[in-house]
Amino acid sequence: MEINIQKRVLEANENESERLKKFFKEKNVFVLNVMSSPGSGKTETLVKTLNRIMPKIRTAVIVGDICTTNDADRLQSTGADVTQINTDKFGGDCHLAAHLIESTAKEFDLERIDLLIVENIGNLVCPAEFDIGEDARTVVLSVTEGEDKPLKYPLMFRLAHSAILNKIDLLPYLEFDVDEAENNIKEVNPNIPVFRISATKEQGFDPWIEWLEKMVFSKISK
Amino acid sequence: MEINIQKRVLEANENESERLKKFFKEKNVFVLNVMSSPGSGKTETLVKTLNRIMPKIRTAVIVGDICTTNDADRLQSTGADVTQINTDKFGGDCHLAAHLIESTAKEFDLERIDLLIVENIGNLVCPAEFDIGEDARTVVLSVTEGEDKPLKYPLMFRLAHSAILNKIDLLPYLEFDVDEAENNIKEVNPNIPVFRISATKEQGFDPWIEWLEKMVFSKISK
Repeated sequence: MEINIQKRVLEANENESERLKKFFKEKNVFVLNVMSSPGSGKTETLVKTLNRIMPKIRTAVIVGDICTTNDADRLQSTGADVTQINTDKFGGDCHLAAHLIESTAKEFDLERIDLLIVENIGNLVCPAEFDIGEDARTVVLSVTEGEDKPLKYPLMFRLAHSAILNKIDLLPYLEFDVDEAENNIKEVNPNIPVFRISATKEQGFDPWIEWLEKMVFSKISK
Repeated sequence: MEINIQKRVLEANENESERLKKFFKEKNVFVLNVMSSPGSGKTETLVKTLNRIMPKIRTAVIVGDICTTNDADRLQSTGADVTQINTDKFGGDCHLAAHLIESTAKEFDLERIDLLIVENIGNLVCPAEFDIGEDARTVVLSVTEGEDKPLKYPLMFRLAHSAILNKIDLLPYLEFDVDEAENNIKEVNPNIPVFRISATKEQGFDPWIEWLEKMVFSKISK
């Protein structure tokens, strides 16, 4: 029963996300869906990313969390337009769905935005199943989480267009084989680019920023 | 629509878990549900825990993962009876449900088991909503994940009977305020015991083991 119910929810979301993709294309906005476990460093990565790409790329952010506006507050400090979605009022949802992104995105002045980043809810499972009208997906894995996570949560890594290995400044203190982690990512997604960074120390950002800018400018023309 | 569907699934699970609680009581087995984000160190914590409590407490483990048997292999090295549930064949479920625990638990010789530990799927959201017939819940948070997680994922921490702050050996290399993290846990769950440990370095285990043994022996009498 549960699986059939889940299928119906996913089908409804798919229809909404298809419509949303067309809407974002009309508006000439590139949408990036950023996902990870709780505490992998999505917000810190995005704060440092926004500082580098703005104002060249005019960026807005939708932040999903069950509770609190902590992440939105941090992102707002970059000067980007930021809206927080708290899913607590929708039953504590574990993912962002297309209909929520649609109603929230329409609050922005999209004519003046090139890139909409969605920082999804911290969860390596459910958000992978819900397309939210995005053009690309980036998954963040911190090196404190263990090398096997891409094999244990393969859907998330299989559907991503790029992966970030974050917190590499902690490698000297961990038994973490960063090459093995990258190999595990490539086992489920052979051609994915993997960027090794430290968001807090702002290390390794250049290739990531280059990839992101290339992706955005390949779609939009404002 | 989605919320109503979710309610029906949760109600069905609640009925099953109530039945399961009675079954475990009859069998005189204490059930502990262990939950956390991916990569917080549940498995390593349990390996070190099993080494300390067995054979005094005869323990079996059910390990939930979407894919792989990595965790089960590690736990089996302790000599405990271990069964892996891979939810991949159930649509990649993000949590363990009561009916899965019921069918799996019946494969063990429960007359010879005092404690059944369920290592849930790595996810701070969905597993909190699904009672699996457990007597107690322990949530593991690693200090690399940020102090605010109890406020962002309050249900998980509110329903827990104990919390473990893991990876404290990394504190010197992090900007992590361990007191603030503990205060945040107690903000959502004032009387919860919080154990600060390093599973890899096996530090701080005594109070945690004492709590666990006390819980188990308060219920079972074999």
